[in-house]
Amino acid sequence: MAQTFEVSILGSSSALPTSQRHPTAQLINVAERYFLVDCGEGTQIQLRRYHFRMQRINHILISHLHGDHFFGLVGLLSSMHLLGRVQTLHLYHPPGLKEIIDIQMRYSCTALKFPIEYHVHDLEQPKLLFEDKVMEVHSFPLNHRIPCCGFVFREKPRPFLINKEKVTSLRVPVSQMGALKRGEDVTLADGTIVPNAELTCGRTKPRSYSFCSDTIFDLSVIQYIKNSDLLYHEATFADDMMERAKTTFHSTAREAGQVARQAEAGKLIIGHFSARYHDTGILLQEALSEFPETVAAEEGKTYSIDEQLIVQKKE
Amino acid sequence: MAQTFEVSILGSSSALPTSQRHPTAQLINVAERYFLVDCGEGTQIQLRRYHFRMQRINHILISHLHGDHFFGLVGLLSSMHLLGRVQTLHLYHPPGLKEIIDIQMRYSCTALKFPIEYHVHDLEQPKLLFEDKVMEVHSFPLNHRIPCCGFVFREKPRPFLINKEKVTSLRVPVSQMGALKRGEDVTLADGTIVPNAELTCGRTKPRSYSFCSDTIFDLSVIQYIKNSDLLYHEATFADDMMERAKTTFHSTAREAGQVARQAEAGKLIIGHFSARYHDTGILLQEALSEFPETVAAEEGKTYSIDEQLIVQKKE
Repeated sequence: MAQTFEVSILGSSSALPTSQRHPTAQLINVAERYFLVDCGEGTQIQLRRYHFRMQRINHILISHLHGDHFFGLVGLLSSMHLLGRVQTLHLYHPPGLKEIIDIQMRYSCTALKFPIEYHVHDLEQPKLLFEDKVMEVHSFPLNHRIPCCGFVFREKPRPFLINKEKVTSLRVPVSQMGALKRGEDVTLADGTIVPNAELTCGRTKPRSYSFCSDTIFDLSVIQYIKNSDLLYHEATFADDMMERAKTTFHSTAREAGQVARQAEAGKLIIGHFSARYHDTGILLQEALSEFPETVAAEEGKTYSIDEQLIVQKKE
Repeated sequence: MAQTFEVSILGSSSALPTSQRHPTAQLINVAERYFLVDCGEGTQIQLRRYHFRMQRINHILISHLHGDHFFGLVGLLSSMHLLGRVQTLHLYHPPGLKEIIDIQMRYSCTALKFPIEYHVHDLEQPKLLFEDKVMEVHSFPLNHRIPCCGFVFREKPRPFLINKEKVTSLRVPVSQMGALKRGEDVTLADGTIVPNAELTCGRTKPRSYSFCSDTIFDLSVIQYIKNSDLLYHEATFADDMMERAKTTFHSTAREAGQVARQAEAGKLIIGHFSARYHDTGILLQEALSEFPETVAAEEGKTYSIDEQLIVQKKE
């Protein structure tokens, strides 16, 4: 059965929102697990606008504590509370966020009806944030003015797809199906060993999405995001603002393209556009010159990573 | 010369924003002095959407520390900073707001380029917040779940309008013009005393706007808002939710109408609508049954108080 892997853009602006663009926020859906990545001001309104159900989000990841990446969080938590949430919410964040939330809840005399589990980032090295049977999420350090992390969402190896016709004709016992899905060879009732490849149609490639939040151009990030099917990389400025990009620890669109190329990404989404670019065409053009599979983030748009069947042996 | 007195609605929703309605925020313009009243999440985006220039705002008044009245403040301050503001900003607010702002600025390593002057509300009695030669602003206590204030914006008595034809024909000396504007009689060169009323066309009535933020129905507020030309009163619920209004210390639309009637207001704006009312028609209808001069707040709309000439003697 097909498994969802989607990234929806809720905000594409850098520090200054415009009347058209909101600060950073993305909703990641992997097999109906919903992760909100960053939560700029207005994120809860964007969720409503695009008909995403906020209560399905059980994990919120905040890359860093610049306002355009988290000023919408306390409002979203309040709305989750008002709408009757009881389910635990997991927050992954740099040090300080709990203090910021607590003080605002205290002064508004709000006792949230649901528990929050706080998970503080490791700012020095990659860290496993979440894992279940179908996927895992890791953080990794980014190079920005203040402590900042990127994130990788990765499917676990998918089960081998059973060739029902073959399995039926050879009368493979039901008890062997688990082994087949794991890629193992099976033994029939008469003792014959049948190689897995003869009974399965291969499996779909595990997909991955990497999110590079605010960062200066820094190729040391490649080790964490190598071969991502989909890569988001900030592209605050065009070439004309190269110096400003450096002093503010941001990247240009061309640099985002270079990262995607070196990471051998499948596709690149650029975003975090400076408010000075009313039209993001120039940013897209400069990124495309480095990496042809680039798109400029569009708010309200969902980018899917398609499943791709690969015929492979178990390692 | 005509003097502006306008109220622009930026948000009309109660605690839960909808895709159509934002949390509370209003921009008051009295003679080109701009006051922002409350600052729910997304206020800076609303300001941009409706083409108001945020840097013209020198005074921000926060009624109370429920999130839907101030979660947009720290984002607005950050944007003012990024856009190069240097001018002092005055904040009028309940205790705690400075702490909430400071902690967020600290973790984002932001040192605002402009000074903020913090003015803590008096929660027990009315207080003069601002005064200059044309107007004054007062706060007054409201009856809500947490400490909360309303605000009155009031023009000072306007100058008498000089009847140029009369003044010229009687050769009133220029030195007497100040006295005339103040409503005084004048003495001509030959010693004749001319009554002010013969040389002026009267003056325009000083206008006032009162803002009743979140409050339970409470007529003790009348003393502060009596005779307001324009009154905003929250109207979170319709009659069907009367009990809920009481337990949450909010008002129904009908109660807002009753307050306007007893205050002998000129016109009533209702707002702070619960998200359960997709259509605010029922709220408007119930308020109208008590007070015919009622409108339901519309985001992006500006309500002007017209100047009204009154022929009057100096008291």
